Amino acid sequence: MLEQAFKTIGLIVRSNSAPHKHEIRSICQTVAEHGDLLVHYLDEDASLREYEHTSIDIIGQSADLVVSVGGDGTLLAATRLMVDYEVPLVGINLGRLGFLADVTMQDLQTHLDAMFAGNYSVEKRFLLQTEIDIGPDETIAPIAFNDIILHSHKSVSMIEFEVFSDGRLINRQRADGLIVTTPTGSTAYSLSGGGPIIHPSLDVLALVPICPHTLSHRPIVLPSDRHIDIQLAGDMIAQVSCDGTTKAVLENGDQIRVQRYPREITLLHPAEYNYFHILRSKLNWSSHP
Amino acid sequence: MLEQAFKTIGLIVRSNSAPHKHEIRSICQTVAEHGDLLVHYLDEDASLREYEHTSIDIIGQSADLVVSVGGDGTLLAATRLMVDYEVPLVGINLGRLGFLADVTMQDLQTHLDAMFAGNYSVEKRFLLQTEIDIGPDETIAPIAFNDIILHSHKSVSMIEFEVFSDGRLINRQRADGLIVTTPTGSTAYSLSGGGPIIHPSLDVLALVPICPHTLSHRPIVLPSDRHIDIQLAGDMIAQVSCDGTTKAVLENGDQIRVQRYPREITLLHPAEYNYFHILRSKLNWSSHP
Amino acid sequence: MLEQAFKTIGLIVRSNSAPHKHEIRSICQTVAEHGDLLVHYLDEDASLREYEHTSIDIIGQSADLVVSVGGDGTLLAATRLMVDYEVPLVGINLGRLGFLADVTMQDLQTHLDAMFAGNYSVEKRFLLQTEIDIGPDETIAPIAFNDIILHSHKSVSMIEFEVFSDGRLINRQRADGLIVTTPTGSTAYSLSGGGPIIHPSLDVLALVPICPHTLSHRPIVLPSDRHIDIQLAGDMIAQVSCDGTTKAVLENGDQIRVQRYPREITLLHPAEYNYFHILRSKLNWSSHP
Amino acid sequence: MLEQAFKTIGLIVRSNSAPHKHEIRSICQTVAEHGDLLVHYLDEDASLREYEHTSIDIIGQSADLVVSVGGDGTLLAATRLMVDYEVPLVGINLGRLGFLADVTMQDLQTHLDAMFAGNYSVEKRFLLQTEIDIGPDETIAPIAFNDIILHSHKSVSMIEFEVFSDGRLINRQRADGLIVTTPTGSTAYSLSGGGPIIHPSLDVLALVPICPHTLSHRPIVLPSDRHIDIQLAGDMIAQVSCDGTTKAVLENGDQIRVQRYPREITLLHPAEYNYFHILRSKLNWSSHP
Repeated sequence: MLEQAFKTIGLIVRSNSAPHKHEIRSICQTVAEHGDLLVHYLDEDASLREYEHTSIDIIGQSADLVVSVGGDGTLLAATRLMVDYEVPLVGINLGRLGFLADVTMQDLQTHLDAMFAGNYSVEKRFLLQTEIDIGPDETIAPIAFNDIILHSHKSVSMIEFEVFSDGRLINRQRADGLIVTTPTGSTAYSLSGGGPIIHPSLDVLALVPICPHTLSHRPIVLPSDRHIDIQLAGDMIAQVSCDGTTKAVLENGDQIRVQRYPREITLLHPAEYNYFHILRSKLNWSSHP
Repeated sequence: MLEQAFKTIGLIVRSNSAPHKHEIRSICQTVAEHGDLLVHYLDEDASLREYEHTSIDIIGQSADLVVSVGGDGTLLAATRLMVDYEVPLVGINLGRLGFLADVTMQDLQTHLDAMFAGNYSVEKRFLLQTEIDIGPDETIAPIAFNDIILHSHKSVSMIEFEVFSDGRLINRQRADGLIVTTPTGSTAYSLSGGGPIIHPSLDVLALVPICPHTLSHRPIVLPSDRHIDIQLAGDMIAQVSCDGTTKAVLENGDQIRVQRYPREITLLHPAEYNYFHILRSKLNWSSHP
Repeated sequence: MLEQAFKTIGLIVRSNSAPHKHEIRSICQTVAEHGDLLVHYLDEDASLREYEHTSIDIIGQSADLVVSVGGDGTLLAATRLMVDYEVPLVGINLGRLGFLADVTMQDLQTHLDAMFAGNYSVEKRFLLQTEIDIGPDETIAPIAFNDIILHSHKSVSMIEFEVFSDGRLINRQRADGLIVTTPTGSTAYSLSGGGPIIHPSLDVLALVPICPHTLSHRPIVLPSDRHIDIQLAGDMIAQVSCDGTTKAVLENGDQIRVQRYPREITLLHPAEYNYFHILRSKLNWSSHP
Repeated sequence: MLEQAFKTIGLIVRSNSAPHKHEIRSICQTVAEHGDLLVHYLDEDASLREYEHTSIDIIGQSADLVVSVGGDGTLLAATRLMVDYEVPLVGINLGRLGFLADVTMQDLQTHLDAMFAGNYSVEKRFLLQTEIDIGPDETIAPIAFNDIILHSHKSVSMIEFEVFSDGRLINRQRADGLIVTTPTGSTAYSLSGGGPIIHPSLDVLALVPICPHTLSHRPIVLPSDRHIDIQLAGDMIAQVSCDGTTKAVLENGDQIRVQRYPREITLLHPAEYNYFHILRSKLNWSSHP
């Protein structure tokens, strides 16, 4: 358990829409009882903002804790924004329990009070980053908390590509695409693609083919420190997306490298956090006869 | 076995490129020994055409038999072009054995001689058609021999839709898309999506979800005379493709109907045609210990 | 809709145990209001029987309708017992809604009244039969409504076998086993093995490999009139089960034939019967956003 | 690379049958050129033994290297026998390339010469162990290199059980069984059950359900230091097998614990060993267009 108190608290808020106005105000009031409050709105519609809008950089440099308010998608975004500032994050879910945003409105007061009293559990998780050359002298390097995906572009058609681990060929595939997932992303899109559930404490990534043409291509679990290179075959066009957002379009023979991002994120959970309880709840698994 | 001889033979040719020039000439000469030859080139580069180019309509009205020259994709195209003329089709494969184009170059002379002598097996297969409203007063109705697919458009993201069979709700799904496949298409894209192999003699279609969010969504096999309606949820954008070609983009609440096309296609195969032999060969199944 | 009234009604009852004593008495009383009642108990503990026990043969020859009381398993048993007598069947479920036994206790009075008034829907379903030589001159031919399964015996180990359709080799497999399923069985064990859901109106069967060694072996849907022969390889031992009950043990090179049973069963359902509604309910599919 | 030379070499040999007599003699001669030879035969037919039979204990205490001769199954057995002696192992395959036994007869001389010259790569792998109470005061604790499996016993029927990780409930399942696999076992039975391929360098295990009744039950990858408890539900009978050999039968409410075995095994491979090359070869993956 971290010893220090949280004096300045950043809020990163999605869905500042009418239906959630009341909840968001209630969260802000609860948080403000415990420290100084800085609010960053992810939505652009300023008319709905009740608090002053603070930049990510100021929150990153000042906050001792960042509270993500929205759902799992909001926490994914907050994680990508905050990872370089090394501020711990906690996720409040305005809807039903999320995989990541595990404080629900009905437990809000109890859980926040406990957390501000130093009663919480701490978890480290890692992110992925991909380097993509998008011009003769231009490279982008977007990050993802769930997954980085190479996928056919526009039409429903297979792409062909080669996958390498630390420079060694794994295989050449024809498929709709390939998911490179973190343990965090293993219960997101990867699961729909047939990937395994991976415990979030593990330093592994998984390569999950999407609708592979060769039926013996299966998900592969690898150490998270491997450099994964994916090279598109000639005459192909594909897109790269990070956590569901398209970042670039690749063409004939273009290549991307996916690797573990050097900084980790710290997630705080309620003290009684139980990963398997969340799995059972989200996947409708039975816990009784 | 059909009784009549084939007097006029249409050739539908893909890949009239340099590497296959010799084979195509050889096929034309072999066919010309048996009847009048009419050639239709699917490629547009006229410089590579050695024979006079004949329109599909003339071939459809004159030919007693159409020979597709290329691969499975060429036969798919030839089937869609010929189904309304009710001319039987045979497929020659310029590459390795196809699921559909099952006469290979090395057996060409033997198989064609046997077929022209009336020694072949006959198979009926059905196609699918979809009605799509693309404007206030405009509807298109493309056909497909393999599959009709609703798929997310451009980005990697789930779409949400409802599926109905003869007006009855089957389910509401969140997935990358949905494949409606014929038995012919069951060994194509549908197989990569986890669909079953369906014997081509069956009057059934299958609905195969692509990367479904709900893990209990599975392929469903239905009678081929069912009207399958797929309604896109609000705030969604999706595309419809037939045999891999995008035909339309759907938006909020748009709906398509998929149903069996009223006319069937007649495929001719070498007399010793064996569906399971082709399956074993194409899927690398062992036939011995 | 059948025209004739049901004058004599057979009840085939499982679970005449204390917890269900009250429900079973209530069902008997409801049925007895509409016709003569004949009761057959599947359980052997005579002490719990409140009504006179009637043999299957007398019920088969006298009853105009047979009501199965228990669950899906009871209806499977009742179907196998009644199929030769050509008496229609309806299933009452003492637990929650079944795939087959679709009259629940809370709708009992309404549904039975409607059915006896001639207001119901009628469905034909087929069964499978397998011929097994169990001695030099002895053959058994058990039937199944869900599935006939060849499976490794006793230990967890692969078996090797060849599968034929009408005498033609489909493939040679190494797997834990092979399921031959009816459409009825497609939502039972077959579904756990990765088989497709098959609409019950279809005259098809499916071959579903259990944990196949070769990853390209997939479920195959075939016409229900095919003779499926399965031949065990040498040095192998396996068991054959019908609807979950072991019927025989096979050894080196033994062979079984599976084929459609010549008689069909008639199931009666409440008039508003909707197969997709039952699928959604049993598989926890959503029907709303 | 290990510094010391291999002075005493143990051979653990399966399949000392006539067809392989010549190869085995050739291996022994090659090995004897490099050091003292001790041979242990796994088969019991003494008539086929050409060399003196040495006990496992003497080999374990004397040998600097153990060569397994047979196939992957032989190396699995040799590993279980040798793990407590901490002697490194290398596997020669009398058939085609194995996942584990990666020295084939055609490369024998080259690979062995290189290895004895100190030119090889070294890999550590872990095993699993399970504690099973088989009597009031009797417990067995068999080990496995591939997998430990709880499976229904004798008949084809689901078993019901609860799975715990370090005392925390993961879920309650109804399935044919559950595989607990090492990375080594991930390309064996687990792969047929739908499990992921796991890189052998990873300290993880996977829980892979076999034909689960609940369709959202998926393989789960966990840290290898977790204590996995599996508790059978009441009225159930099941068997426990280690690397395919049945070790015990469980009944109502019996429980087993699976955990990482404290000692690791050291495998030696040819210097150019490439795990992905073996995957591609064994799973028929393409490495070229």
